[in-house]
Amino acid sequence: MTDSPGNKAVLLIADSERDADMLYATGMFVPDPFTFLQVGGRTTIMMSDLEIDRARVQSKVDEVVSLTDYTDRAKGSGNADPGLVDAVVELLRDREVKCVRVPNGFPLGYADRLRDRGFEVAPKEDPFWDQRPVKTDDEVAAISDASRHTEAALRMAFALLAEASVKDGTLYGPEGPITSEYIRNRIHIYLLERDCIAQHTIIAGGVQGCDPHNGGSGPLRAGEPIIFDLFPKSTKTGYFADITRTVAKGPVSDTYRRLYDTVLEGQEVALSRVQAGVDGREIHMEVERLFESRGYETGAKNGRMQGFFHGTGHGFGLEIHEPPRISKVSQVLKAGHVVTVEPGLYYPDLGGGVRIEDNVVVTEDGCVNLTRLEKVFEV
Amino acid sequence: MTDSPGNKAVLLIADSERDADMLYATGMFVPDPFTFLQVGGRTTIMMSDLEIDRARVQSKVDEVVSLTDYTDRAKGSGNADPGLVDAVVELLRDREVKCVRVPNGFPLGYADRLRDRGFEVAPKEDPFWDQRPVKTDDEVAAISDASRHTEAALRMAFALLAEASVKDGTLYGPEGPITSEYIRNRIHIYLLERDCIAQHTIIAGGVQGCDPHNGGSGPLRAGEPIIFDLFPKSTKTGYFADITRTVAKGPVSDTYRRLYDTVLEGQEVALSRVQAGVDGREIHMEVERLFESRGYETGAKNGRMQGFFHGTGHGFGLEIHEPPRISKVSQVLKAGHVVTVEPGLYYPDLGGGVRIEDNVVVTEDGCVNLTRLEKVFEV
Repeated sequence: MTDSPGNKAVLLIADSERDADMLYATGMFVPDPFTFLQVGGRTTIMMSDLEIDRARVQSKVDEVVSLTDYTDRAKGSGNADPGLVDAVVELLRDREVKCVRVPNGFPLGYADRLRDRGFEVAPKEDPFWDQRPVKTDDEVAAISDASRHTEAALRMAFALLAEASVKDGTLYGPEGPITSEYIRNRIHIYLLERDCIAQHTIIAGGVQGCDPHNGGSGPLRAGEPIIFDLFPKSTKTGYFADITRTVAKGPVSDTYRRLYDTVLEGQEVALSRVQAGVDGREIHMEVERLFESRGYETGAKNGRMQGFFHGTGHGFGLEIHEPPRISKVSQVLKAGHVVTVEPGLYYPDLGGGVRIEDNVVVTEDGCVNLTRLEKVFEV
Repeated sequence: MTDSPGNKAVLLIADSERDADMLYATGMFVPDPFTFLQVGGRTTIMMSDLEIDRARVQSKVDEVVSLTDYTDRAKGSGNADPGLVDAVVELLRDREVKCVRVPNGFPLGYADRLRDRGFEVAPKEDPFWDQRPVKTDDEVAAISDASRHTEAALRMAFALLAEASVKDGTLYGPEGPITSEYIRNRIHIYLLERDCIAQHTIIAGGVQGCDPHNGGSGPLRAGEPIIFDLFPKSTKTGYFADITRTVAKGPVSDTYRRLYDTVLEGQEVALSRVQAGVDGREIHMEVERLFESRGYETGAKNGRMQGFFHGTGHGFGLEIHEPPRISKVSQVLKAGHVVTVEPGLYYPDLGGGVRIEDNVVVTEDGCVNLTRLEKVFEV
């Protein structure tokens, strides 16, 4: 870890299950908050007795020290009942550190107490680790690994739709009507068997698909678009994949076919424009213009947004939403960024929405598409 | 929500997937950070366009306002590119709030910017919501619901051990040797089918069980204790259960039988002492004394802790570790606390460890054990 944000020492106090910057810095999952300190190029973590042996084996830091040792030092300094911050103070003094750079999300309570003890605590804007948005080959491999499982789960789900029978417009499988909940459960189990945890998976048919945060529920119907948006996390590596396909149990109307083809065209335009040095805003605006030129308007109607009202894409990795964004906000892409490309169009009046999402690595002269899953509207 | 920490207005900026105080305050899962404000008894959340409709349906707050509206106000005040904090400033001004109380873990970067704009930002020690450690009947019901599934998953796993055959000391099932990984996978799938997500489940046989944070790996063996520690979270409610059983494919040696019976005796002593008004420290010390009186010493040996070297129990609910603790640290139990009672003894020299864990609700005159699963050492 030579990626120091600025010249100050770096201090993090967090668990690494939930805090991706801590996981990135230490390379190990720890469920309870612990302390990471970087002085010059040297990285140190301070661990409880319960975690110290495992940390020495699993973490990628230079040094693992004992929380008990530094708590004892605080007791030696006359503090009868020292807490975590008191141990941190002892560690900082030991390392002759007076100023620390911390993440934007560093706990205020700890910062105030460190400031009261005379330390300078300077928060840094995200991204905290300058290198984190730019993925290494190992990180791309971890994302690709999660992608393979995600694609397989989608293929498994589409096979269930393909073999379904249709009665009065509703899809039926061997166990009865096929619901969003049923497919979601099959997908989650399939992924779990491959060490991937998926939450909030979207299986949204028809009008339900028009609300991008509606997970979908109830029986699925033939002839209408069903949005499948899967973003599982590998429990082995901590990295996500994020893939969306829209499919329908055909045949579909010309209205839906044209909606699907337009979104696909929008995605192809965006994919062709992704490249290091390009501003995400320009990509997003070009997709917007294309949709408008095809007659697909964006805006509020009857108090509800319709058209293309989310960003074209976003970075991801150890978190599902990371910098950069490909959206209305100006942000220049760099080689090594891993981003989604996911335009969509949603029209409650037409009875449905379409979104198609791939994951790409930005390169100097374009991008590499990590998603290999075919795009077929009718199953 | 009339549970105001102190008299100041209350401000939270967090997502409610990872931040339990935010989930507690709003009653809905939101994956990206948003803003919660409580002024007097009135609660308000400020939501993005993507979440606002869902928030109006699902959240338990009094009022849902639009992030876009307050961002537009900031633009009207001359800020060309307002961020989340700028919208929060507009909301605070609108509600004539100058001082806010925030959690210990409130993001420092936001706090510094609010202070720069003239607001007083005062962090409060955990627990942030005074009432959160004291569970309502609904919360106890949610924990009990997760417990029922956890107990069923354990019974399912024990059935696999019971029907196993033994060859050269190793357990075999229909698919070959029975490993920790295999059982863990079966348990995780079983729980997922019941909307519970389990992570870091411990299935640790023999010496592996002596490291309380070793998840366990490889083939399981007959005649040695296997620790099963499951702490899944319901994805419907957000509440955890936390149950441990130690079982062995018998017959077991007298050494292990005595170890098991002593831990069980320790748990019974602890359960009999749990009551509102009792200091957790006294319960913990009594278990320690019992183990010592039976000849089970605690301390470092060959550089490794052995004996009873963790707490007797801890609160849990929306997080797996919450106040209060039943440990060396003095903390008085209150009626409504939900805590684990989980003594253990670990001796690498004896070849294994034992831990037994139930979940109880503290009452005025004792406790109610929420865990119904039988305690049987030999399967």
